Amino acid sequence: MQTITSKENSLIKHICKLKEKKYRNEYNQYLIEGVKLVKEAIEEHANIEYIIISEEAKSSELVAKYLKNVLQSTEYIQVPNNIFKLISEVEKPQGVLAVIRKNLEDIKIDYSQDIILALDGIQDPGNLGTIIRTADSVGLTQILISKGTADPYNSKVIRSTMGAIFRVNIIECDNFSKTLKMCQENNYKIIVTSLESKQSIYDLKLKKKVIVIGNEANGVSKESLELADERAIIPMLGKTESLNASVATGIILYEYVRQKISH
Amino acid sequence: MQTITSKENSLIKHICKLKEKKYRNEYNQYLIEGVKLVKEAIEEHANIEYIIISEEAKSSELVAKYLKNVLQSTEYIQVPNNIFKLISEVEKPQGVLAVIRKNLEDIKIDYSQDIILALDGIQDPGNLGTIIRTADSVGLTQILISKGTADPYNSKVIRSTMGAIFRVNIIECDNFSKTLKMCQENNYKIIVTSLESKQSIYDLKLKKKVIVIGNEANGVSKESLELADERAIIPMLGKTESLNASVATGIILYEYVRQKISH
Repeated sequence: MQTITSKENSLIKHICKLKEKKYRNEYNQYLIEGVKLVKEAIEEHANIEYIIISEEAKSSELVAKYLKNVLQSTEYIQVPNNIFKLISEVEKPQGVLAVIRKNLEDIKIDYSQDIILALDGIQDPGNLGTIIRTADSVGLTQILISKGTADPYNSKVIRSTMGAIFRVNIIECDNFSKTLKMCQENNYKIIVTSLESKQSIYDLKLKKKVIVIGNEANGVSKESLELADERAIIPMLGKTESLNASVATGIILYEYVRQKISH
Repeated sequence: MQTITSKENSLIKHICKLKEKKYRNEYNQYLIEGVKLVKEAIEEHANIEYIIISEEAKSSELVAKYLKNVLQSTEYIQVPNNIFKLISEVEKPQGVLAVIRKNLEDIKIDYSQDIILALDGIQDPGNLGTIIRTADSVGLTQILISKGTADPYNSKVIRSTMGAIFRVNIIECDNFSKTLKMCQENNYKIIVTSLESKQSIYDLKLKKKVIVIGNEANGVSKESLELADERAIIPMLGKTESLNASVATGIILYEYVRQKISH
């Protein structure tokens, strides 16, 4: 155990920088906060660079319950509560935070999966995190994201994934259209949802499909629309004409589950 | 058009109070903010008591696009931008806000619907709003909520409903179990989701069913579990064992849609 007591300490300053996307990109690191997330990161063998624990947290019940063994066997840094507040991004910190190194390997797309999820400009961090969580729950091991999508290493995204961020490969595509075309070359059909389509998602055979989920306000981009092999609609029975993006994604991914288990 | 220029004005003070649940309950009023929500409130004939417009907003493009006719035909109150900032609850206000009277009629449960959605302790305002939006999209006209559920008139909830709050009756149940029993007496079966169940939601016939959605962390209450006629699981294929509450609700409600349109 190390102890840091000055807020001028270079690691403390470095951690504060990681709250901003630009520094997360520069250093290829991101922050996770909270007892459960740190526990998941350890269990999933994420690349943990530092674990920071506040004085208060060391004797908290929550930490005792979830991280007792960790604190006995892992290197961590202890800081006073007032310094923890500086690095924390939540109102009521649990006093546990870690710096994680992004997975920098050149991740190849796994073309053996039935479904590839491709996010085309999802903006809301809560939506993005929930989508990653849902994708993990149906066994997807990867998600493609376009340049215009929110930063998956934003703290709100991470929180909403409930740990799924450590299991799902997030593949950031420099050229989204090109990546979609590569999927087509590997025998996938590109599916976009469209309010104008007459084809219901329930009539699609959800196998070897790339599901493109568009931006909350504007839907999928023109480029993706042009590449689409099929357009499909989630049929609605009420007056509301649109669904929350993470709910829409859940509906489509679980239609895939339904088809898979009923065969 | 009226103008208010003092922040000591009693209406301005009253509006600020409505940011708190206790005053929303006391006055049976709530706030909605933003051009689109106010437009929806007018179109859906919500009980609008006041419309407040900032000076800046009067000449904004957004207001011109959506509310031009309204401003010509409806009473509204104009306030300087600095006063609008006081009453606004968002970082970047559009300068349009309204005070709505809650629907105080003694709303009876409509037992003609195929599905009744019952929320048993949903805590996150974003989840609650998204669930209301999703329910509206499948044609549900009512939602039962337990005492322990978040306030549906909270501004974050309202925003997430995207206007569905004006179409769906929110029935706050003083005695949730008693209400569920009344549904049973009216030939509904109570369905709860449970990770321990072996019965898949895809094997349920979703007709004359009350779907109980539990709290994000703890699931459905003991009382509701005891009343349940059937327990069902959303089958998952990955490692994550739980879903976001609004995604889970969406999956079940759209399985209802799928069954409905395929018969």
